[in-house]
Amino acid sequence: MEKGEEEGLGRVRRGRAHRVAARKEGSKQVKPYLTRKIEPYNLLSEEELEKVELYADRILWEVGLEITDHPFSLDLLRGAGAKVEGTRVRCEGAMLREIIRGSAPREFTQHARNPEKSVVIGGKNTVFVPAYGPPFVRDLEKGRRYASMEDFSNFVKLAYMSESLHHSGGTVCEPVDLPVNKRHFDMVYAHLRYSDRPFLGSVTAGERAQDTVEMAKIVFGSDFVDKNCVVVGLINANSPLGFDKTMLDALCVYAENNQGCLVSPFVVGGAMSPASVIGIVTQTYVEVMLGMALTQLVRRGSPVVFGSFASTMSMQSGAPIFGMAESSLVQMGVSQLARRLGVPCRSGGGLCTSKIADGQACYEASNTLNATLMSGVNFVLHSAGWLEGGLSMGYEKFMMDNDQLRNVARLAEGVDTSDESFAFDAFEEVGPGGHFLGSLHTRRHFETAFIGPGLSDVNSYEQWKEEGERDMLSRAHDAWKRSLLEYERPFMDEGIDEGLKDFMGRRKASMPDREY
Amino acid sequence: MEKGEEEGLGRVRRGRAHRVAARKEGSKQVKPYLTRKIEPYNLLSEEELEKVELYADRILWEVGLEITDHPFSLDLLRGAGAKVEGTRVRCEGAMLREIIRGSAPREFTQHARNPEKSVVIGGKNTVFVPAYGPPFVRDLEKGRRYASMEDFSNFVKLAYMSESLHHSGGTVCEPVDLPVNKRHFDMVYAHLRYSDRPFLGSVTAGERAQDTVEMAKIVFGSDFVDKNCVVVGLINANSPLGFDKTMLDALCVYAENNQGCLVSPFVVGGAMSPASVIGIVTQTYVEVMLGMALTQLVRRGSPVVFGSFASTMSMQSGAPIFGMAESSLVQMGVSQLARRLGVPCRSGGGLCTSKIADGQACYEASNTLNATLMSGVNFVLHSAGWLEGGLSMGYEKFMMDNDQLRNVARLAEGVDTSDESFAFDAFEEVGPGGHFLGSLHTRRHFETAFIGPGLSDVNSYEQWKEEGERDMLSRAHDAWKRSLLEYERPFMDEGIDEGLKDFMGRRKASMPDREY
Repeated sequence: MEKGEEEGLGRVRRGRAHRVAARKEGSKQVKPYLTRKIEPYNLLSEEELEKVELYADRILWEVGLEITDHPFSLDLLRGAGAKVEGTRVRCEGAMLREIIRGSAPREFTQHARNPEKSVVIGGKNTVFVPAYGPPFVRDLEKGRRYASMEDFSNFVKLAYMSESLHHSGGTVCEPVDLPVNKRHFDMVYAHLRYSDRPFLGSVTAGERAQDTVEMAKIVFGSDFVDKNCVVVGLINANSPLGFDKTMLDALCVYAENNQGCLVSPFVVGGAMSPASVIGIVTQTYVEVMLGMALTQLVRRGSPVVFGSFASTMSMQSGAPIFGMAESSLVQMGVSQLARRLGVPCRSGGGLCTSKIADGQACYEASNTLNATLMSGVNFVLHSAGWLEGGLSMGYEKFMMDNDQLRNVARLAEGVDTSDESFAFDAFEEVGPGGHFLGSLHTRRHFETAFIGPGLSDVNSYEQWKEEGERDMLSRAHDAWKRSLLEYERPFMDEGIDEGLKDFMGRRKASMPDREY
Repeated sequence: MEKGEEEGLGRVRRGRAHRVAARKEGSKQVKPYLTRKIEPYNLLSEEELEKVELYADRILWEVGLEITDHPFSLDLLRGAGAKVEGTRVRCEGAMLREIIRGSAPREFTQHARNPEKSVVIGGKNTVFVPAYGPPFVRDLEKGRRYASMEDFSNFVKLAYMSESLHHSGGTVCEPVDLPVNKRHFDMVYAHLRYSDRPFLGSVTAGERAQDTVEMAKIVFGSDFVDKNCVVVGLINANSPLGFDKTMLDALCVYAENNQGCLVSPFVVGGAMSPASVIGIVTQTYVEVMLGMALTQLVRRGSPVVFGSFASTMSMQSGAPIFGMAESSLVQMGVSQLARRLGVPCRSGGGLCTSKIADGQACYEASNTLNATLMSGVNFVLHSAGWLEGGLSMGYEKFMMDNDQLRNVARLAEGVDTSDESFAFDAFEEVGPGGHFLGSLHTRRHFETAFIGPGLSDVNSYEQWKEEGERDMLSRAHDAWKRSLLEYERPFMDEGIDEGLKDFMGRRKASMPDREY
């Protein structure tokens, strides 16, 4: 499948011309987020959900959680009625549920700097978000290497150009060429400047979360930020059964600023949680309840999401495995618990273990993504780009996943059962043995009847062969190159841009570079 | 990813040794079919299902179906109350439903010559069956070429060796090196001789269906065959709204012999059916009802399955598209209608449009397969091997799909919610910040906690790189070669084998070779 660079670029340019032409014919209005018209799948019975609650409550009371180096959180929990002994917190599940249900919003809007791209998180809505956290990137030409700030900006741009993603994400890859204590400035700036979609903020230290909020205030205005969610932070638990200072600091900053928290335990079943689906679900519920309640104790009504990220494990080698059925079942279970609590849910994505965007990666990603959609998850981190268990962000995988998001979005639309859609007139017109292509009904619905092939090749074998027997990976390679060529920065008021640069400049100058 | 032949064989042999060793440690008991423990997903509401019925009944009465060159079927339908004018049949939906519900079995056993491998079709059961019909085969070494009888036998052997498939299938590929009018003998013989699983019979002519039944009688005995289902035929409608002589002849042969029929319209939305999901569902329902009712008019109580096979279409090029959301929605709809009628359902599989087993193929196959599982489909033709819209049977794809069937089978098992599975003792033992790997609970469930990686590579990036950066396709290549090396023919009584050969010899000698 490898081609000379020159020929490759020619393809890219031809592709660009096609695309521009297609746009002139009238491109589809991109929806800022998905509103599902199909019901979520309910895996667990009411009785089973009650049993989860029962065991969760026993864990909360009989085992408890560890809150390390964070007296502020301990005080809040003690004040709410928890039993605190040293760093061990024990409490009643009912108490946590009462706190959460008492003030956590069922759904909330995360505002984008372009108001047309604000997303509603929760309820029947689903928001697709790029992958988060990979220290490496991979593409077909240069292979795998450490991610740089250039890669980071590229993925922000690709997400901005995407017609399937709804969000700019957070650490779309880790820009390891920048000092650890300063890279958050550049990441937040990239999301704000190169995109106009909503984004995730820094969580690697309380002050970095605060920097994120301050930069958001420059863009949105302080008053607006105090009253509205414009940034969300990904708060991992320290599983099993704990939270550490770094994450709690970030949680407190976002909550006290009325910004959003995705409280998300990250567990590998058999390592950080039991080797059973229901064990993973129950532990996730325990950890999330504590984290969510904390956000409400910090500031009642602050937006918070019930998060879950779970992989299974190869019991032979201890390696984490993504994309398998047990993870799908966990997703289904936790999303039910989130609905039961009355809060939005985060889970799933296009997860895989494969190192490359081969068949393995695509089976695994599709397994996860289909389960995500059927589960009714609201916030889908890792929707695009994820490779090798999250260690690598793939340029081609990013485009391939994007393409697949179109498909699950169509699935979420469900079935039109209007009289028109039954096409009775076409049956009368066409009759037995006829052909529907020329029927009036088909002509009326020609443009929107079925989603198109996207990155899939649906040509005849002969045509495909003539065109060089290309695989999806090779087409995806062209697609991201083309997308970056077509990218144009969205408008930003110069004063705001200056304000951001000024803030970053001062803050960066105020501290030495550090690698932690 | 290409390797020298010698090294390749070395890998195969090493793999074999590993596998034999693994078997000695005690391999898992293979289940003859899947019994789902999770509920099917119900996409359409009761009201919507009633609307489908309403429109289906209007099509049946106001448009009608064409039955060409088959007075026998027309007489049966007229006798049952249909209005027959020439070849056009109009009838009431209620009449067809009454006939079907009156005698078609809710579920039935298709007996295998090895009784341990008999499958139950219908109810909560799911049977995975290889792909059906491709005139071409493809593998990584030899590329794409016309299928031969050797390929056919290979796929029968690979299905026999599979731990995920439950059935030997039918025309696993078309052995184009044999005369059209005689190849069914060799195909049926291969299924009977090289496997001991259930299989699908010939449908390309009434006499070939009868030959299939006669060969089955040699193996199972005439009395047994008359009382039990040992062979099933795939009966396509002539969509839209028709059935032709060939298929009706085959339907009648199987039904009158008390054997099974999969009545399956094969439609490309926008071509042989309307360009709408509910239009496809409704037309499928109409055609299937007529075909199913016919089987019951031929012989009441004969086993029959509600089949559906639907692809969408690229409205730009007219090419069929597999693996997209609309096809998943059709599957969900038709499986509900089948349950409503009280009969087994056939749909889905590992469908794709891709010419090769690349990312596209695997996304598409996984999309289809996950929807199949969630729909609660009972008989899943095309579960393994399908490439390029059914034109090609892929050796590697066959193994890759097989591997994925393990995954959906695990999904179908649902969640264990016994007290033991909640692992409360592990939470007590491990506590906050601990590790579950060494816990007693994990040790108790070590072997069965999670399904293993199978053909997926879950090693570290470094290990994967050291082992040659292989993709799933390359591992699948080794896997099918290894499986054929390990294959051993199941026992068959010599007298029966002689009987089959004798029958085939006489029948073949009785007619000239023909290419139709």
